[in-house]
Amino acid sequence: MTEPATLSTLDTLEDLMAHQRAVRSFTDRPVDEALIARLIRAATRAPSAKNAQCLRFVVVRNPGLKRQISDLYEQPGTTAAPGGPTPWSDVPVLIFVVAEDPFGNSPTGQSALVASVYPGVQNLLLAAQAAGLGTVLTTSRAKLKERELRDLLNLPENVDIHAVIPVGYPAVQLGRNKRKPVREVAFRERYGEPW
Amino acid sequence: MTEPATLSTLDTLEDLMAHQRAVRSFTDRPVDEALIARLIRAATRAPSAKNAQCLRFVVVRNPGLKRQISDLYEQPGTTAAPGGPTPWSDVPVLIFVVAEDPFGNSPTGQSALVASVYPGVQNLLLAAQAAGLGTVLTTSRAKLKERELRDLLNLPENVDIHAVIPVGYPAVQLGRNKRKPVREVAFRERYGEPW
Repeated sequence: MTEPATLSTLDTLEDLMAHQRAVRSFTDRPVDEALIARLIRAATRAPSAKNAQCLRFVVVRNPGLKRQISDLYEQPGTTAAPGGPTPWSDVPVLIFVVAEDPFGNSPTGQSALVASVYPGVQNLLLAAQAAGLGTVLTTSRAKLKERELRDLLNLPENVDIHAVIPVGYPAVQLGRNKRKPVREVAFRERYGEPW
Repeated sequence: MTEPATLSTLDTLEDLMAHQRAVRSFTDRPVDEALIARLIRAATRAPSAKNAQCLRFVVVRNPGLKRQISDLYEQPGTTAAPGGPTPWSDVPVLIFVVAEDPFGNSPTGQSALVASVYPGVQNLLLAAQAAGLGTVLTTSRAKLKERELRDLLNLPENVDIHAVIPVGYPAVQLGRNKRKPVREVAFRERYGEPW
């Protein structure tokens, strides 16, 4: 992070975003409960369609429960391999991002739902990074074992899991992310017209 | 914005997020092209599943094209009413967020897609706000007139519109957003267990 006093808010934000990386390897340093609350607070600040504020967060830190969740995906009893991804049983915090669907099953309803979920997720990831924490946004695992997770987390039938976010202090510091340049992703007036 | 020199990055970010509001009423001050590129650059920094980087941005500023788009929704020829929402014909910039779907139509594929779209959208919205711009995340209008927009923007059949983001300088300065407190949205270990 460059000296903040010399940077505008946009510069600070760009620097933060440029360093967002998928962190899958964590130290065992615990994450302060008040800090977790700040991350969730940040998530609530994002927009939601009709201001429905439908996001909910199940924060899992209990070792037994993390082990049960981890065993859905990994060889039961797996522990961290040096330098490899941390098994979910050993990640300090697993945040399950869940939501009722207040919008219904039409195409506009389904867009409204996802546009009300992932902006909040991104706020949470950015806030975590600003606090020196690592995270990784996962969605497939939740879908693959939704039935089992629903039981373990006591989720009502009308509440779906949209993401699982492992959170902890990174075992390794990663550099800036690499992305396609703007000229490859932006178009002028019509699709295909070079920026 | 409080004095940045006295604030940590997390404090700065929380303050920015707490002031994110849906801005629908814009001045006619033009938006610098280099600044638009910075917003898109910010969007590219967000995570995408398998690092697919599938987001694309069609930036519409041409008055004739904005008028054609606006006429899909508003009485043709509508102009801004004092204090009311700015018709899309008069919004300085309309950014269409579009994407091919590299993930396929399975439940995990569909989650991967939306989790690769809206984090980038939120980055764009936050960067705009840090630059003093107003935005509003819209999705329904795109879905309701997808066929017509596809023609106007020359979108290939395999590219879908996920959001339309009007961008401009806000006509009115809005205060902090109001959100449910963390204790109403966070649960401890299992759904329904109070934070």
